[in-house]
Amino acid sequence: MPSEKIDSQLLDESELSLNLIEAQYFLKNTRDQKNAKSVLVLVNGIELAGKGESVKQLREWVDPRYLRVKADPPIMLNQKQTFWQPYAPSIPAEGEIMVMFGNWYSDLLVTALHVSKPLDETLFDAYIEDMRAFEQDLKNNHVDVIKVWFDLSWKSLQKRLDNMDPSEVHWHKLHGLDWRNKKQYDNVQKLRQRFTQDWTIIDCEDEKARDQQFAQTILAAMKHCPKHLSQSTAKWKQAAVPELLLHPENQPITKEDYKKELKNLSLKVAEALRFDDLKAIVVLEGMDAAGKGGAIKRIVKNLDPREYDIHPISAPETYEMRHPYLWRFWTKLQTEEDITIFDRSWYGRVLVERVEGFVNEAEWQRAYDEINRFEKDLVNSQTVVIKLWLAISKDEQEARFKVREATPHKRFKITADDWRNREKWDEYLSAAADMFERTSTVHAPWYIIATNDKNTARLEVLRAILKQLRAN
Amino acid sequence: MPSEKIDSQLLDESELSLNLIEAQYFLKNTRDQKNAKSVLVLVNGIELAGKGESVKQLREWVDPRYLRVKADPPIMLNQKQTFWQPYAPSIPAEGEIMVMFGNWYSDLLVTALHVSKPLDETLFDAYIEDMRAFEQDLKNNHVDVIKVWFDLSWKSLQKRLDNMDPSEVHWHKLHGLDWRNKKQYDNVQKLRQRFTQDWTIIDCEDEKARDQQFAQTILAAMKHCPKHLSQSTAKWKQAAVPELLLHPENQPITKEDYKKELKNLSLKVAEALRFDDLKAIVVLEGMDAAGKGGAIKRIVKNLDPREYDIHPISAPETYEMRHPYLWRFWTKLQTEEDITIFDRSWYGRVLVERVEGFVNEAEWQRAYDEINRFEKDLVNSQTVVIKLWLAISKDEQEARFKVREATPHKRFKITADDWRNREKWDEYLSAAADMFERTSTVHAPWYIIATNDKNTARLEVLRAILKQLRAN
Repeated sequence: MPSEKIDSQLLDESELSLNLIEAQYFLKNTRDQKNAKSVLVLVNGIELAGKGESVKQLREWVDPRYLRVKADPPIMLNQKQTFWQPYAPSIPAEGEIMVMFGNWYSDLLVTALHVSKPLDETLFDAYIEDMRAFEQDLKNNHVDVIKVWFDLSWKSLQKRLDNMDPSEVHWHKLHGLDWRNKKQYDNVQKLRQRFTQDWTIIDCEDEKARDQQFAQTILAAMKHCPKHLSQSTAKWKQAAVPELLLHPENQPITKEDYKKELKNLSLKVAEALRFDDLKAIVVLEGMDAAGKGGAIKRIVKNLDPREYDIHPISAPETYEMRHPYLWRFWTKLQTEEDITIFDRSWYGRVLVERVEGFVNEAEWQRAYDEINRFEKDLVNSQTVVIKLWLAISKDEQEARFKVREATPHKRFKITADDWRNREKWDEYLSAAADMFERTSTVHAPWYIIATNDKNTARLEVLRAILKQLRAN
Repeated sequence: MPSEKIDSQLLDESELSLNLIEAQYFLKNTRDQKNAKSVLVLVNGIELAGKGESVKQLREWVDPRYLRVKADPPIMLNQKQTFWQPYAPSIPAEGEIMVMFGNWYSDLLVTALHVSKPLDETLFDAYIEDMRAFEQDLKNNHVDVIKVWFDLSWKSLQKRLDNMDPSEVHWHKLHGLDWRNKKQYDNVQKLRQRFTQDWTIIDCEDEKARDQQFAQTILAAMKHCPKHLSQSTAKWKQAAVPELLLHPENQPITKEDYKKELKNLSLKVAEALRFDDLKAIVVLEGMDAAGKGGAIKRIVKNLDPREYDIHPISAPETYEMRHPYLWRFWTKLQTEEDITIFDRSWYGRVLVERVEGFVNEAEWQRAYDEINRFEKDLVNSQTVVIKLWLAISKDEQEARFKVREATPHKRFKITADDWRNREKWDEYLSAAADMFERTSTVHAPWYIIATNDKNTARLEVLRAILKQLRAN
């Protein structure tokens, strides 16, 4: 009874559609809630398997307004940017679902298969491992990553190529891959076997089954809202506060010596920062009034204003808080500027956000590793990450606050908050100590600079930058 | 006494610097305040006059963290995007100051001087007029636009070219212009004369005077915070409510006819929307439950999900409110998608924001012209703007609300707000009437579609889209 079969098929579809829409609104309504999350769907597979058709069918079943779709042609992975950089702006915010056709895996496959310079398997596996780690960080920060491989046999692929409507060719761009070449097809399949086990493989021989399986996968992802971890599982080992933070005394310098040395060093810094093959990121952290602003002035002294970006970092905006906390930094590194200075940075996560209780224990304790991976990815992309902590004593800070209050044109630099933060001085020192202990890596070490004498500190900042640039 | 002269010069500089920093913090602190504004500095001029040096000097005098600088190489103006599109994302938010080296004027000059196809003067003047209008809209929406022309005589230019340090060549890219060519120099000067009168011309023979004049210009701009207009100056003439809005009855259609016609029309719409040379923007407005979501499903029926973007528009985020209200739409049109659908749109300004009193009288009354200019710019950039109002009667809305409440999977679609909005039904109708009266333009007319029968309405939506696409 074929008519009955069709009816039951239709019933299933309309039920599936209702379930999908309900799950979509459920997901949407998690925004700004405790169980908030977003869903990122990475769609890859054999050409002509029907990725596009399945997403089209999905978008018919769901409310299309709340399913975002992005398709970028694959690009070759290269040493100039991390694999996640091109896609960072499109990572969905809490409550959103995004389907990405072009993604780091399509880039990896195209790179691996590129004839003139194929990736070897060790490098391929290393990329897979980095991607898995990045996705785990996304998941921990409430972006569920769903990876779907649309599979098709060699025989069916050839048959579909034979039957292709020439007018549809524009939807099946082959991105430099030759799907008529059996060896290349086998290579794709061989490489795909090296992917991690968390892919959903969809057999695309039957179109209806394919579309339903894909939709069911998305439905499950939207409905699955794991409880976010708030407590750490292991006992926390507080690091000792480095001596230099407790006694940030340094040698004063005469005005003449300072001027001479400043001129000399700032020219060298400009030259080194400008070095064509490397990008540079300078991170300044430290207590209020430690001299971050003054140090920045000296760093950029001999740079053209078009050569660098400065990002003063304060509390995140609401829309930024709907993303992984590193997201606002990922997206600030999208510009072509080769020199980027951060006046405060992602370290806020393990400093102010930890001390003030804006994040829970699991979040800040997890952040050290996440930050290390983030910086390592940058360092592997021809970037020097220079991290400077300007250390000031509590007495010296008080003296500088009082000067600010007494000086008309500096008064706007000091607020009640600044005084209040002093009450948590020791907690900030402890947080800083943990930060040095856990994020002073070989690829991006911390430089602690004593600042009780401002001029000496400024020279030390320049020397630290030179040292780290020359280490690369 | 040259030494005294130097001293007084230095004193001036440090005073100027203090004033600049104070003005910067003043500007920064206007953020989210009633007198909020931002400053956009467009920097243009003769090559080697010293734009870069003056901005560098300015950034030394101010707090460099709160002076953003952006430099893009000029691009040829073209029919594919509006002159403001490349720069829209960089327009500063309230409290910010941004210096733009590459801007619409550099694009205009390079386009006008391009040898193979120079702009004629009429077209040049038309561009100048459009730019002036756009800048006026920016100013009215709290972005002060400061335009600075760095001028240099032919003789001095040649002398500086002679003395140029070869290592600095990379800072003086000539962008295809030949500054050794007297005719081209004269052309630039001739074209610049056609600029509007609101440019600050800086004589760049003397470097110190140049830097100081530039800094003084910026200082004045930061300090100048005009009171924002809140009351309209003219008496408002309320438009009559169109008959169709009061009686949105339409002819029901049989299910068979609907299905057949839907298939036919949605294929035609997909084909027409896809037409390569034109971009399409579809705007859907109307009361709640008028069927915008359902209409969108039918519009995209035969489109691939990678071909279009859908933007559901709700209340702006805080960071968006720090920009001109059209900014969040300017920046949504940056993608390469050729088909963009807005479920609610910039018309919120003259509908919900007007009715709910989120904007003052001057703001919503000014918005009609601003919107018309915005759409005209789009239409002039190979874009068809299709505006659809889905009209529903108050009784029919109530009936649909009740169905939604009674249907489990539709319950999430209805909130207390939806019922509350009904209380202002007549005010919304009046606002809609004014909107049709003032924004139904030749280049982007409104289509009012009766929706009391849903299926007929969906077909009418498709017919309206086809009609407007074919008009172009």
